[in-house]
Amino acid sequence: MRFFERLERRIESTGSVLCVGLDPDLDRLPEHLHEHDLPRRAWGRRIVDATHEHAAAYKPNAAFYEDPDGWRALEETIAYAHGKDVPVVLDAKRGDVGHTARQYARLLDDASLGADAITVSPYLGRDSLEPFLSRTGKGVFVLCRTSNPGGADLQDRELAGGERLYERVARLAGEWNERGNVGLVVGATAETELERTRELAPDLPFLVPGVGTQGGDAAAAVEHGLAGGVGLVNASRSIVFAGEGSDEAFAKAAGAAAKRLERRLNEHR
Amino acid sequence: MRFFERLERRIESTGSVLCVGLDPDLDRLPEHLHEHDLPRRAWGRRIVDATHEHAAAYKPNAAFYEDPDGWRALEETIAYAHGKDVPVVLDAKRGDVGHTARQYARLLDDASLGADAITVSPYLGRDSLEPFLSRTGKGVFVLCRTSNPGGADLQDRELAGGERLYERVARLAGEWNERGNVGLVVGATAETELERTRELAPDLPFLVPGVGTQGGDAAAAVEHGLAGGVGLVNASRSIVFAGEGSDEAFAKAAGAAAKRLERRLNEHR
Repeated sequence: MRFFERLERRIESTGSVLCVGLDPDLDRLPEHLHEHDLPRRAWGRRIVDATHEHAAAYKPNAAFYEDPDGWRALEETIAYAHGKDVPVVLDAKRGDVGHTARQYARLLDDASLGADAITVSPYLGRDSLEPFLSRTGKGVFVLCRTSNPGGADLQDRELAGGERLYERVARLAGEWNERGNVGLVVGATAETELERTRELAPDLPFLVPGVGTQGGDAAAAVEHGLAGGVGLVNASRSIVFAGEGSDEAFAKAAGAAAKRLERRLNEHR
Repeated sequence: MRFFERLERRIESTGSVLCVGLDPDLDRLPEHLHEHDLPRRAWGRRIVDATHEHAAAYKPNAAFYEDPDGWRALEETIAYAHGKDVPVVLDAKRGDVGHTARQYARLLDDASLGADAITVSPYLGRDSLEPFLSRTGKGVFVLCRTSNPGGADLQDRELAGGERLYERVARLAGEWNERGNVGLVVGATAETELERTRELAPDLPFLVPGVGTQGGDAAAAVEHGLAGGVGLVNASRSIVFAGEGSDEAFAKAAGAAAKRLERRLNEHR
Protein backbone atom coordinates (compact mmCIF):
# COMPACT_ATOMS: atom_id res chain seq x y z
CA MET A 1 0.00 0.00 0.00
CA ARG A 2 1.21 3.51 -0.80
CA PHE A 3 2.06 5.77 2.10
CA PHE A 4 -0.72 8.30 1.62
CA GLU A 5 -3.34 5.53 1.29
CA ARG A 6 -2.06 4.01 4.49
CA LEU A 7 -2.15 7.41 6.17
CA GLU A 8 -5.69 8.01 4.93
CA ARG A 9 -6.84 4.72 6.48
CA ARG A 10 -5.10 5.57 9.73
CA ILE A 11 -6.78 9.00 9.82
CA GLU A 12 -10.14 7.32 9.21
CA SER A 13 -9.64 4.66 11.89
CA THR A 14 -8.37 7.04 14.59
CA GLY A 15 -10.37 10.11 13.58
CA SER A 16 -7.17 12.08 14.10
CA VAL A 17 -4.80 14.09 11.91
CA LEU A 18 -2.37 14.62 14.75
CA CYS A 19 1.27 13.70 14.19
CA VAL A 20 3.16 13.24 17.44
CA GLY A 21 6.75 14.38 17.13
CA LEU A 22 9.30 12.38 19.10
CA ASP A 23 12.18 14.60 20.25
CA PRO A 24 13.81 12.59 23.04
CA ASP A 25 16.17 15.24 24.36
CA LEU A 26 18.22 13.25 26.90
CA ASP A 27 18.37 16.29 29.18
CA ARG A 28 14.57 16.33 29.42
CA LEU A 29 13.71 12.64 29.83
CA PRO A 30 12.24 11.62 33.21
CA GLU A 31 14.98 10.78 35.68
CA HIS A 32 13.87 7.20 36.30
CA LEU A 33 14.24 6.26 32.62
CA HIS A 34 17.99 6.74 32.80
CA GLU A 35 18.16 3.42 34.67
CA HIS A 36 17.23 1.66 31.42
CA ASP A 37 19.75 0.29 28.95
CA LEU A 38 18.31 2.57 26.28
CA PRO A 39 16.44 5.46 27.95
CA ARG A 40 15.15 6.77 24.63
CA ARG A 41 13.69 3.39 23.72
CA ALA A 42 11.99 3.11 27.13
CA TRP A 43 10.69 6.67 26.76
CA GLY A 44 9.46 6.06 23.21
CA ARG A 45 7.52 2.95 24.21
CA ARG A 46 5.77 4.74 27.04
CA ILE A 47 4.96 7.73 24.86
CA VAL A 48 3.60 5.46 22.11
CA ASP A 49 1.55 3.46 24.63
CA ALA A 50 0.02 6.67 25.99
CA THR A 51 -0.60 8.54 22.73
CA HIS A 52 -1.16 6.05 19.90
CA GLU A 53 -4.96 6.21 20.00
CA HIS A 54 -4.69 9.91 19.15
CA ALA A 55 -1.83 9.63 16.67
CA ALA A 56 -2.30 9.47 12.91
CA ALA A 57 1.48 9.17 12.73
CA TYR A 58 4.69 9.54 14.70
CA LYS A 59 7.53 11.78 13.63
CA PRO A 60 10.81 10.83 15.31
CA ASN A 61 13.34 13.63 14.95
CA ALA A 62 16.64 12.11 13.79
CA ALA A 63 18.67 14.82 15.53
CA PHE A 64 17.84 13.34 18.92
CA TYR A 65 18.99 9.84 17.98
CA GLU A 66 22.37 10.53 16.39
CA ASP A 67 24.72 8.36 18.43
CA PRO A 68 25.16 4.55 18.66
CA ASP A 69 22.60 4.01 21.43
CA GLY A 70 20.29 6.57 19.90
CA TRP A 71 20.23 4.82 16.56
CA ARG A 72 19.27 1.54 18.27
CA ALA A 73 16.56 3.34 20.20
CA LEU A 74 15.31 4.90 16.96
CA GLU A 75 15.13 1.53 15.18
CA GLU A 76 13.20 0.02 18.04
CA THR A 77 10.90 3.00 18.51
CA ILE A 78 9.90 2.80 14.85
CA ALA A 79 9.30 -0.95 15.20
CA TYR A 80 7.23 -0.37 18.32
CA ALA A 81 5.07 2.25 16.59
CA HIS A 82 4.58 -0.19 13.72
CA GLY A 83 3.48 -2.75 16.30
CA LYS A 84 0.68 -0.34 17.17
CA ASP A 85 -0.06 0.07 13.44
CA VAL A 86 0.98 3.75 13.40
CA PRO A 87 2.89 5.00 10.34
CA VAL A 88 6.20 6.72 11.00
CA VAL A 89 7.64 9.81 9.31
CA LEU A 90 11.38 10.10 9.89
CA ASP A 91 12.16 13.79 10.32
CA ALA A 92 15.64 13.84 8.84
CA LYS A 93 15.59 16.77 6.38
CA ARG A 94 18.25 15.03 4.33
CA GLY A 95 19.36 16.22 0.92
CA ASP A 96 22.56 15.30 -0.87
CA VAL A 97 24.02 14.42 -4.27
CA GLY A 98 23.77 11.18 -6.26
CA HIS A 99 25.31 8.21 -4.48
CA THR A 100 24.94 9.86 -1.06
CA ALA A 101 21.24 10.50 -1.66
CA ARG A 102 20.87 6.85 -2.62
CA GLN A 103 22.48 5.90 0.67
CA TYR A 104 20.23 8.22 2.71
CA ALA A 105 17.16 6.82 0.95
CA ARG A 106 18.02 3.41 2.36
CA LEU A 107 16.84 4.73 5.73
CA LEU A 108 13.38 3.95 4.38
CA ASP A 109 14.19 0.29 3.76
CA ASP A 110 13.32 -2.50 6.15
CA ALA A 111 16.99 -3.51 6.31
CA SER A 112 17.62 -0.10 7.91
CA LEU A 113 15.01 1.91 9.85
CA GLY A 114 12.01 0.98 7.75
CA ALA A 115 10.39 4.39 8.16
CA ASP A 116 7.22 4.92 6.11
CA ALA A 117 8.04 8.46 5.05
CA ILE A 118 10.84 11.00 5.39
CA THR A 119 11.36 14.75 5.32
CA VAL A 120 13.87 16.00 2.73
CA SER A 121 15.40 19.32 1.69
CA PRO A 122 14.84 20.57 -1.89
CA TYR A 123 17.98 22.74 -2.12
CA LEU A 124 19.90 20.19 -4.23
CA GLY A 125 17.09 19.69 -6.73
CA ARG A 126 15.23 16.87 -8.36
CA ASP A 127 18.02 14.31 -8.80
CA SER A 128 18.89 14.55 -5.10
CA LEU A 129 15.33 13.48 -4.25
CA GLU A 130 14.92 10.77 -6.88
CA PRO A 131 16.20 7.89 -4.69
CA PHE A 132 13.49 8.75 -2.16
CA LEU A 133 10.79 9.31 -4.77
CA SER A 134 11.56 6.02 -6.49
CA ARG A 135 10.57 4.12 -3.34
CA THR A 136 6.97 4.34 -4.44
CA GLY A 137 5.47 2.85 -1.28
CA LYS A 138 7.09 5.52 0.86
CA GLY A 139 6.12 9.14 1.48
CA VAL A 140 8.47 12.05 0.78
CA PHE A 141 7.74 15.36 2.53
CA VAL A 142 9.70 18.16 0.86
CA LEU A 143 10.60 21.22 2.94
CA CYS A 144 8.74 24.17 1.46
CA ARG A 145 8.12 27.00 3.96
CA THR A 146 9.52 26.25 7.38
CA SER A 147 8.19 27.42 10.74
CA ASN A 148 11.31 29.28 11.94
CA PRO A 149 11.92 33.05 11.57
CA GLY A 150 14.92 32.42 9.25
CA GLY A 151 12.60 30.50 6.95
CA ALA A 152 12.11 33.85 5.26
CA ASP A 153 15.82 34.40 4.51
CA LEU A 154 15.79 32.29 1.35
CA GLN A 155 12.32 30.76 1.09
CA ASP A 156 10.54 34.14 0.80
CA ARG A 157 12.97 35.57 -1.75
CA GLU A 158 11.18 36.75 -4.88
CA LEU A 159 12.33 35.13 -8.09
CA ALA A 160 12.45 36.87 -11.45
CA GLY A 161 8.83 36.67 -12.66
CA GLY A 162 7.40 37.41 -9.23
CA GLU A 163 7.18 33.94 -7.73
CA ARG A 164 8.76 33.39 -4.31
CA LEU A 165 11.22 30.56 -3.76
CA TYR A 166 8.88 28.51 -1.55
CA GLU A 167 6.14 28.94 -4.18
CA ARG A 168 8.53 27.57 -6.77
CA VAL A 169 9.26 24.60 -4.51
CA ALA A 170 5.53 24.00 -4.08
CA ARG A 171 5.03 23.97 -7.86
CA LEU A 172 8.09 21.78 -8.45
CA ALA A 173 6.87 19.32 -5.81
CA GLY A 174 3.70 18.93 -7.88
CA GLU A 175 5.89 18.01 -10.88
CA TRP A 176 7.95 15.63 -8.72
CA ASN A 177 4.76 13.86 -7.62
CA GLU A 178 4.61 11.49 -10.61
CA ARG A 179 4.19 8.48 -8.31
CA GLY A 180 1.74 10.10 -5.88
CA ASN A 181 4.13 9.99 -2.93
CA VAL A 182 5.10 13.64 -2.41
CA GLY A 183 3.96 15.89 0.43
CA LEU A 184 5.15 19.29 1.65
CA VAL A 185 6.38 20.58 4.99
CA VAL A 186 4.77 23.98 5.62
CA GLY A 187 4.91 25.59 9.05
CA ALA A 188 1.76 26.71 10.85
CA THR A 189 3.52 29.87 12.05
CA ALA A 190 3.55 31.33 8.52
CA GLU A 191 -0.19 31.37 7.90
CA THR A 192 -0.23 33.43 4.72
CA GLU A 193 2.42 31.20 3.16
CA LEU A 194 0.53 28.10 4.30
CA GLU A 195 -2.63 29.26 2.53
CA ARG A 196 -0.67 30.24 -0.57
CA THR A 197 1.10 26.88 -0.70
CA ARG A 198 -2.24 25.11 -0.59
CA GLU A 199 -3.36 27.13 -3.65
CA LEU A 200 -0.24 26.16 -5.55
CA ALA A 201 -0.25 22.48 -4.57
CA PRO A 202 -3.94 21.64 -4.21
CA ASP A 203 -3.43 17.87 -4.24
CA LEU A 204 -0.41 17.42 -1.97
CA PRO A 205 -0.82 16.39 1.68
CA PHE A 206 1.08 18.71 4.03
CA LEU A 207 2.97 17.97 7.18
CA VAL A 208 2.35 21.10 9.26
CA PRO A 209 4.63 21.62 12.26
CA GLY A 210 4.56 24.54 14.63
CA VAL A 211 1.12 24.35 16.31
CA GLY A 212 2.53 23.45 19.73
CA THR A 213 5.46 25.20 21.42
CA GLN A 214 6.02 27.40 18.37
CA GLY A 215 2.50 28.87 18.67
CA GLY A 216 1.16 28.39 15.13
CA ASP A 217 -2.56 28.52 14.38
CA ALA A 218 -4.34 25.15 14.66
CA ALA A 219 -7.34 26.24 12.59
CA ALA A 220 -5.18 27.31 9.65
CA ALA A 221 -3.07 24.17 9.96
CA VAL A 222 -6.15 21.97 9.55
CA GLU A 223 -7.85 24.15 6.96
CA HIS A 224 -4.86 24.31 4.63
CA GLY A 225 -2.85 21.25 5.66
CA LEU A 226 -5.21 18.58 4.41
CA ALA A 227 -5.73 17.51 0.80
CA GLY A 228 -8.87 15.42 0.44
CA GLY A 229 -8.76 14.96 4.20
CA VAL A 230 -5.19 13.64 4.17
CA GLY A 231 -2.36 15.45 5.91
CA LEU A 232 -0.69 15.76 9.27
CA VAL A 233 -0.54 18.49 11.89
CA ASN A 234 2.46 17.96 14.11
CA ALA A 235 3.22 18.85 17.71
CA SER A 236 6.29 17.55 19.49
CA ARG A 237 7.46 19.10 22.74
CA SER A 238 4.02 20.41 23.78
CA ILE A 239 2.86 16.79 23.85
CA VAL A 240 5.82 14.63 24.80
CA PHE A 241 7.07 17.00 27.49
CA ALA A 242 3.63 18.05 28.75
CA GLY A 243 4.36 16.22 31.99
CA GLU A 244 7.94 17.36 32.33
CA GLY A 245 9.00 17.24 35.99
CA SER A 246 6.26 14.80 36.95
CA ASP A 247 8.59 11.80 36.48
CA GLU A 248 6.42 8.63 36.46
CA ALA A 249 3.35 10.56 35.27
CA PHE A 250 5.04 11.90 32.12
CA ALA A 251 3.38 9.43 29.76
CA LYS A 252 -0.11 10.03 31.13
CA ALA A 253 0.40 13.78 30.69
CA ALA A 254 1.54 13.21 27.11
CA GLY A 255 -1.56 11.12 26.41
CA ALA A 256 -3.82 13.84 27.81
CA ALA A 257 -2.04 16.53 25.78
CA ALA A 258 -2.36 14.44 22.60
CA LYS A 259 -6.06 13.92 23.25
CA ARG A 260 -6.62 17.67 23.81
CA LEU A 261 -4.81 18.65 20.64
CA GLU A 262 -6.58 15.94 18.63
CA ARG A 263 -9.92 17.41 19.74
CA ARG A 264 -8.82 20.96 19.05
CA LEU A 265 -7.74 19.99 15.54
CA ASN A 266 -11.00 18.11 14.96
CA GLU A 267 -13.01 21.24 15.74
CA HIS A 268 -11.65 22.59 12.47
CA ARG A 269 -12.01 19.51 10.27
CA MET B 1 42.55 27.54 17.76
CA ARG B 2 39.92 28.41 15.16
CA PHE B 3 39.18 25.86 12.47
CA PHE B 4 40.50 27.80 9.51
CA GLU B 5 43.75 28.62 11.35
CA ARG B 6 44.17 24.95 12.15
CA LEU B 7 43.43 24.08 8.53
CA GLU B 8 45.95 26.67 7.32
CA ARG B 9 48.67 25.11 9.49
CA ARG B 10 47.76 21.66 8.26
CA ILE B 11 47.96 22.82 4.64
CA GLU B 12 51.37 24.35 5.36
CA SER B 13 52.75 21.29 7.12
CA THR B 14 51.54 18.76 4.52
CA GLY B 15 51.81 20.99 1.46
CA SER B 16 48.40 19.61 0.45
CA VAL B 17 44.91 21.06 -0.02
CA LEU B 18 43.43 17.64 -0.65
CA CYS B 19 40.43 16.60 1.42
CA VAL B 20 39.91 12.84 1.42
CA GLY B 21 36.23 11.95 1.53
CA LEU B 22 35.35 8.83 3.51
CA ASP B 23 32.32 7.08 2.00
CA PRO B 24 32.48 3.57 3.46
CA ASP B 25 29.80 1.92 1.37
CA LEU B 26 29.52 -1.51 3.00
CA ASP B 27 28.91 -3.10 -0.40
CA ARG B 28 32.29 -1.85 -1.61
CA LEU B 29 34.57 -2.55 1.36
CA PRO B 30 37.24 -5.22 0.84
CA GLU B 31 35.90 -8.66 1.66
CA HIS B 32 38.42 -9.44 4.41
CA LEU B 33 37.37 -6.40 6.48
CA HIS B 34 33.97 -7.92 7.09
CA GLU B 35 35.64 -10.26 9.60
CA HIS B 36 36.16 -7.27 11.88
CA ASP B 37 33.75 -6.22 14.61
CA LEU B 38 33.33 -2.84 12.91
CA PRO B 39 34.37 -3.15 9.24
CA ARG B 40 34.01 0.60 8.67
CA ARG B 41 36.32 1.37 11.58
CA ALA B 42 38.91 -1.10 10.31
CA TRP B 43 38.58 0.36 6.81
CA GLY B 44 38.84 3.94 8.07
CA ARG B 45 42.02 3.22 10.02
CA ARG B 46 43.71 1.65 7.03
CA ILE B 47 42.63 4.47 4.73
CA VAL B 48 43.87 7.07 7.22
CA ASP B 49 47.18 5.23 7.67
CA ALA B 50 47.69 5.15 3.91
CA THR B 51 46.55 8.67 3.01
CA HIS B 52 47.15 11.02 5.95
CA GLU B 53 50.45 12.41 4.65
CA HIS B 54 48.56 13.70 1.63
CA ALA B 55 45.42 14.82 3.47
CA ALA B 56 44.78 18.39 4.60
CA ALA B 57 41.52 17.05 6.04
CA TYR B 58 39.17 14.10 6.04
CA LYS B 59 35.50 14.36 5.18
CA PRO B 60 33.50 11.41 6.51
CA ASN B 61 30.10 11.26 4.82
CA ALA B 62 27.44 10.79 7.51
CA ALA B 63 25.14 8.91 5.13
CA PHE B 64 27.45 5.90 5.21
CA TYR B 65 27.51 5.67 9.00
CA GLU B 66 23.80 5.93 9.84
CA ASP B 67 23.19 2.79 11.87
CA PRO B 68 24.29 1.77 15.38
CA ASP B 69 27.59 0.15 14.32
CA GLY B 70 28.19 2.86 11.78
CA TRP B 71 27.84 5.58 14.35
CA ARG B 72 30.48 3.87 16.52
CA ALA B 73 32.76 3.47 13.51
CA LEU B 74 32.30 7.17 12.71
CA GLU B 75 33.22 8.25 16.25
CA GLU B 76 36.34 6.14 16.20
CA THR B 77 37.34 7.10 12.67
CA ILE B 78 37.22 10.78 13.65
CA ALA B 79 39.27 10.03 16.78
CA TYR B 80 41.80 8.10 14.70
CA ALA B 81 42.17 10.95 12.21
CA HIS B 82 42.69 13.31 15.14
CA GLY B 83 45.40 10.94 16.37
CA LYS B 84 47.19 11.66 13.10
CA ASP B 85 46.55 15.39 13.63
CA VAL B 86 44.25 15.67 10.62
CA PRO B 87 41.18 17.94 10.94
CA VAL B 88 37.83 16.37 10.16
CA VAL B 89 34.88 17.89 8.28
CA LEU B 90 31.68 15.98 8.96
CA ASP B 91 29.71 15.93 5.71
CA ALA B 92 26.20 15.96 7.14
CA LYS B 93 24.39 18.74 5.20
CA ARG B 94 22.12 19.27 8.19
CA GLY B 95 19.68 22.15 8.45
CA ASP B 96 16.71 22.38 10.77
CA VAL B 97 14.77 24.76 13.02
CA GLY B 98 15.65 26.09 16.50
CA HIS B 99 15.96 23.37 19.08
CA THR B 100 16.66 20.69 16.45
CA ALA B 101 19.47 22.76 14.96
CA ARG B 102 20.91 23.12 18.46
CA GLN B 103 20.85 19.36 18.79
CA TYR B 104 22.52 18.76 15.42
CA ALA B 105 25.22 21.30 16.31
CA ARG B 106 26.18 19.10 19.25
CA LEU B 107 27.72 16.72 16.68
CA LEU B 108 30.64 19.13 16.77
CA ASP B 109 31.15 18.75 20.52
CA ASP B 110 33.68 16.42 22.08
CA ALA B 111 30.90 14.70 24.04
CA SER B 112 29.54 13.60 20.64
CA LEU B 113 31.62 13.19 17.48
CA GLY B 114 33.97 16.10 18.06
CA ALA B 115 34.20 16.93 14.36
CA ASP B 116 36.17 20.09 13.57
CA ALA B 117 33.79 21.36 10.91
CA ILE B 118 30.47 20.42 9.33
CA THR B 119 28.56 20.95 6.10
CA VAL B 120 25.12 22.56 6.48
CA SER B 121 22.20 23.51 4.22
CA PRO B 122 21.16 27.19 4.00
CA TYR B 123 17.51 26.56 3.04
CA LEU B 124 16.18 27.31 6.54
CA GLY B 125 18.10 30.55 6.92
CA ARG B 126 20.33 32.26 9.43
CA ASP B 127 18.73 31.14 12.70
CA SER B 128 18.96 27.50 11.63
CA LEU B 129 22.74 27.91 11.29
CA GLU B 130 23.35 29.97 14.42
CA PRO B 131 23.97 26.98 16.75
CA PHE B 132 26.77 25.87 14.42
CA LEU B 133 28.16 29.38 13.90
CA SER B 134 28.22 30.06 17.63
CA ARG B 135 30.74 27.25 18.11
CA THR B 136 33.49 29.66 17.19
CA GLY B 137 36.30 27.11 17.16
CA LYS B 138 34.50 25.01 14.55
CA GLY B 139 34.16 25.47 10.80
CA VAL B 140 30.78 25.70 9.06
CA PHE B 141 30.67 24.96 5.32
CA VAL B 142 27.39 26.23 3.86
CA LEU B 143 26.06 24.53 0.72
CA CYS B 144 26.12 27.11 -2.06
CA ARG B 145 26.32 25.58 -5.56
CA THR B 146 26.39 21.81 -5.49
CA SER B 147 28.09 19.47 -7.95
CA ASN B 148 25.00 17.51 -9.06
CA PRO B 149 22.91 18.27 -12.20
CA GLY B 150 19.86 19.11 -10.06
CA GLY B 151 21.93 21.75 -8.29
CA ALA B 152 20.58 24.07 -10.99
CA ASP B 153 16.89 23.42 -10.15
CA LEU B 154 16.80 25.93 -7.29
CA GLN B 155 20.34 27.24 -6.87
CA ASP B 156 20.53 28.76 -10.35
CA ARG B 157 17.09 30.42 -10.19
CA GLU B 158 17.28 34.14 -10.84
CA LEU B 159 15.95 36.33 -8.07
CA ALA B 160 14.19 39.64 -8.59
CA GLY B 161 17.07 42.07 -9.11
CA GLY B 162 19.06 39.64 -11.25
CA GLU B 163 21.03 37.75 -8.63
CA ARG B 164 20.86 33.95 -8.68
CA LEU B 165 19.95 32.02 -5.55
CA TYR B 166 23.44 30.54 -5.05
CA GLU B 167 24.88 34.05 -5.45
CA ARG B 168 22.54 35.25 -2.73
CA VAL B 169 23.72 32.39 -0.49
CA ALA B 170 27.35 33.34 -1.19
CA ARG B 171 26.66 36.95 -0.16
CA LEU B 172 24.65 35.92 2.90
CA ALA B 173 27.45 33.58 3.98
CA GLY B 174 29.75 36.59 4.01
CA GLU B 175 27.30 38.31 6.40
CA TRP B 176 27.05 35.16 8.51
CA ASN B 177 30.85 35.07 8.85
CA GLU B 178 31.01 37.42 11.86
CA ARG B 179 33.20 34.97 13.78
CA GLY B 180 35.44 33.98 10.85
CA ASN B 181 34.27 30.38 10.76
CA VAL B 182 32.17 30.17 7.58
CA GLY B 183 33.15 28.44 4.37
CA LEU B 184 31.17 27.45 1.27
CA VAL B 185 30.59 24.18 -0.56
CA VAL B 186 30.89 24.82 -4.30
CA GLY B 187 31.16 21.94 -6.74
CA ALA B 188 34.02 21.72 -9.23
CA THR B 189 31.63 20.50 -11.93
CA ALA B 190 30.02 23.97 -12.20
CA GLU B 191 33.10 25.96 -13.14
CA THR B 192 31.41 29.22 -14.07
CA GLU B 193 29.48 29.24 -10.81
CA LEU B 194 32.64 28.37 -8.88
CA GLU B 195 34.44 31.38 -10.34
CA ARG B 196 31.44 33.64 -9.72
CA THR B 197 31.12 32.48 -6.11
CA ARG B 198 34.76 33.35 -5.51
CA GLU B 199 34.06 36.90 -6.77
CA LEU B 200 31.13 37.26 -4.38
CA ALA B 201 32.84 35.73 -1.35
CA PRO B 202 36.49 36.68 -1.78
CA ASP B 203 37.47 35.83 1.80
CA LEU B 204 35.69 32.54 2.41
CA PRO B 205 37.51 29.21 2.12
CA PHE B 206 35.66 26.76 -0.13
CA LEU B 207 35.22 23.04 0.15
CA VAL B 208 35.19 21.95 -3.49
CA PRO B 209 33.87 18.45 -4.19
CA GLY B 210 33.54 16.84 -7.57
CA VAL B 211 37.10 16.58 -8.91
CA GLY B 212 37.21 12.79 -8.71
CA THR B 213 34.49 10.45 -9.93
CA GLN B 214 32.27 13.39 -10.88
CA GLY B 215 34.88 14.72 -13.30
CA GLY B 216 35.19 18.35 -12.21
CA ASP B 217 38.17 20.50 -13.20
CA ALA B 218 41.10 20.32 -10.75
CA ALA B 219 42.71 23.54 -11.99
CA ALA B 220 39.54 25.57 -11.44
CA ALA B 221 38.97 23.93 -8.07
CA VAL B 222 42.37 25.09 -6.85
CA GLU B 223 42.27 28.48 -8.57
CA HIS B 224 38.91 29.48 -7.11
CA GLY B 225 38.61 27.24 -4.07
CA LEU B 226 41.34 28.80 -1.97
CA ALA B 227 41.13 32.08 -0.06
CA GLY B 228 44.59 33.23 1.03
CA GLY B 229 45.77 29.71 0.35
CA VAL B 230 43.13 28.15 2.59
CA GLY B 231 40.48 25.81 1.27
CA LEU B 232 39.89 22.17 0.45
CA VAL B 233 39.49 20.21 -2.76
CA ASN B 234 37.72 16.95 -2.06
CA ALA B 235 37.79 13.57 -3.72
CA SER B 236 36.13 10.55 -2.17
CA ARG B 237 35.47 7.41 -4.20
CA SER B 238 38.29 8.03 -6.71
CA ILE B 239 40.71 7.78 -3.80
CA VAL B 240 39.23 5.40 -1.25
CA PHE B 241 38.02 2.89 -3.84
CA ALA B 242 41.02 3.26 -6.19
CA GLY B 243 42.03 -0.29 -5.27
CA GLU B 244 38.55 -1.77 -5.37
CA GLY B 245 38.76 -5.49 -6.05
CA SER B 246 42.38 -5.76 -4.93
CA ASP B 247 41.34 -6.74 -1.38
CA GLU B 248 44.46 -6.46 0.87
CA ALA B 249 46.04 -3.86 -1.41
CA PHE B 250 43.13 -1.43 -1.21
CA ALA B 251 44.82 0.93 1.25
CA LYS B 252 48.05 1.12 -0.73
CA ALA B 253 46.04 1.98 -3.84
CA ALA B 254 44.20 4.70 -1.91
CA GLY B 255 47.50 6.15 -0.72
CA ALA B 256 48.85 6.23 -4.27
CA ALA B 257 45.67 7.85 -5.57
CA ALA B 258 45.80 10.50 -2.83
CA LYS B 259 49.43 11.24 -3.64
CA ARG B 260 48.67 11.58 -7.36
CA LEU B 261 45.77 13.95 -6.78
CA GLU B 262 47.74 15.97 -4.23
CA ARG B 263 50.44 16.49 -6.88
CA ARG B 264 47.93 17.33 -9.58
CA LEU B 265 46.31 19.93 -7.32
CA ASN B 266 49.71 21.36 -6.39
CA GLU B 267 50.51 21.97 -10.07
CA HIS B 268 47.81 24.66 -9.93
CA ARG B 269 48.68 26.26 -6.56
